[in-house]
Amino acid sequence: MKQGKLIVIEGGDGAGKDTQIALLQKRFGTEDFVYTREPGGTPLGKELRSILLHAKHGEVALPAELFLFLADRAQHVAEVIRPALAAGKHVISHRSWMSFVAYQIYGRNQHDWKPLVEEAIRKIYAECTPDIVILLNLSPDIGLERIRKTGRALDTMESMPIEAHREIQRGFLETLQTLPHTVIVDAARSKEEVWKDVERAVLSVL
Amino acid sequence: MKQGKLIVIEGGDGAGKDTQIALLQKRFGTEDFVYTREPGGTPLGKELRSILLHAKHGEVALPAELFLFLADRAQHVAEVIRPALAAGKHVISHRSWMSFVAYQIYGRNQHDWKPLVEEAIRKIYAECTPDIVILLNLSPDIGLERIRKTGRALDTMESMPIEAHREIQRGFLETLQTLPHTVIVDAARSKEEVWKDVERAVLSVL
Repeated sequence: MKQGKLIVIEGGDGAGKDTQIALLQKRFGTEDFVYTREPGGTPLGKELRSILLHAKHGEVALPAELFLFLADRAQHVAEVIRPALAAGKHVISHRSWMSFVAYQIYGRNQHDWKPLVEEAIRKIYAECTPDIVILLNLSPDIGLERIRKTGRALDTMESMPIEAHREIQRGFLETLQTLPHTVIVDAARSKEEVWKDVERAVLSVL
Repeated sequence: MKQGKLIVIEGGDGAGKDTQIALLQKRFGTEDFVYTREPGGTPLGKELRSILLHAKHGEVALPAELFLFLADRAQHVAEVIRPALAAGKHVISHRSWMSFVAYQIYGRNQHDWKPLVEEAIRKIYAECTPDIVILLNLSPDIGLERIRKTGRALDTMESMPIEAHREIQRGFLETLQTLPHTVIVDAARSKEEVWKDVERAVLSVL
């Protein structure tokens, strides 16, 4: 059977990932496509996500945070991504390890962990290189303002200072340069305009 | 203030770690000593321990298991070991990263992860090298038989096949060779005989 394609939708907070993935689901349906997310794409990952984003068991020390996110990723690849691709399904993932690098290495300023983390990612995602990464690129000032307007509470990552969010954006752009196939979409525009670019990018790999 | 000493009690399942640590607590009290454990020495670690040893959220993929145990260790060093040593307290730890290496690398046969794991351990335990590691050394056949006699259910690690437990014992012995100060105690003897060796070893570093 032909291996499915791995499509990753990336971007900072408030960049419109949920909106665009809802449009992808409407467009492509669920028969040949699996829609998933990192962190939190498995039962274990949901628990880890709640520990990480809502401090369920108190404050998490920075290196422990790194390892919990890596555990989420390792479980997700083993339980969801690899079996789906092997079964010929296309996988659309709301974030992947690019977010992990952008938030945990750049946002948290843990560059001394970068070589180890990159090696861990190489081993975890072996044979699961994304066929395309679509970055919804947006100034964090605009993204966070969008979230504030919805009135919902910010999680642990979203409530980092604005300087950290600027580092996260820089992390996304630097990380994407190391990948074979990426599309950077200007996410400051209307959702309809963004959707045209997202749809075109996804169709280009199917 | 003078930094406290880090004392690690290691050994396979059924080797008598709980018994000897209870005797240490009776002998040295709790004023100058902190008694702790890996995994599960923090609120986050307790949750991770329950996920890992009792499959609370379903089966954990092997590399995810590695990272959850590393997260437990990182949190424990940051929250318990480092502050206690800095406050001049002596720390007695029921297992440490030697168990992690013995069980996850040797017991689970994940030797391809060894270099990465060793680098992670070096970074997590920086400035927290144990002053002494006391290994309660016991044939796993005897250790597991002791547990079976108590009638309690075996956890995820204990219920690995006997060959894995033999690898774990080999892992302990190989890992200890890389450490500056270790004592290997024959744990097949009576608890009183073992205690004499354990007490002498602890007194030697105080």
